[in-house]
Amino acid sequence: MSLEEKIVAAIETYVASFEKKELDTIVDLFAEDAWIEDPVGSERKVGHDALRAFYQTAIDMNVKGTLESEIRVAGNEAAFAFSIAVDTGNGTLLIRPIDTMTFNDDGKITSMRAFFGARNQSME
Amino acid sequence: MSLEEKIVAAIETYVASFEKKELDTIVDLFAEDAWIEDPVGSERKVGHDALRAFYQTAIDMNVKGTLESEIRVAGNEAAFAFSIAVDTGNGTLLIRPIDTMTFNDDGKITSMRAFFGARNQSME
Repeated sequence: MSLEEKIVAAIETYVASFEKKELDTIVDLFAEDAWIEDPVGSERKVGHDALRAFYQTAIDMNVKGTLESEIRVAGNEAAFAFSIAVDTGNGTLLIRPIDTMTFNDDGKITSMRAFFGARNQSME
Repeated sequence: MSLEEKIVAAIETYVASFEKKELDTIVDLFAEDAWIEDPVGSERKVGHDALRAFYQTAIDMNVKGTLESEIRVAGNEAAFAFSIAVDTGNGTLLIRPIDTMTFNDDGKITSMRAFFGARNQSME
């Protein structure tokens, strides 16, 4: 697989794994020393242990990810628009980020930043 | 206007200005020392003179920008998916980037990175 193919496969797996509650799969997509900034402007979480705690919380909220449009790949970086549907028990909260990611040569995510704010969230 | 409103207005103006061939309008959206990396991985162009030359080339190609979906704003940063249609005289080349931008407190763009690759371009 080319790096571009690895990047596309990793992002498709990332988005699909929330609904499947596959925490190990999500964490394994990241390099050991990867960091995430979610949302952009918040404190970065570094390393598999911190990422596992973060994604455990997301999975516990019964979320479903859906890609909004094609994944953009430029060299070892990528960006994609998607939505996260959160079943609140009292309606669905829809959060619509654009994530940017960097990748190493093995296709592991080395960083992720999630762009979204108040205007990108709504109750459906 | 709040910073968020300034950011949204700046991006809407940016995307709309290509078809109108409003080069001065585009350059004026940027801070004096702003830089762009278009596409991601290419050499950065710094300052109004370099940006003017870059956008002059784009405008000369008879391009039309269209936002694909809602603008994501997080603090003083934003991301948006859009398309650029290039009239080649022999069909339309469609380029579909996701851009990320940073802004200063005045709502001027201080940096822009354009994420797209071969998979995000096609002849229509």
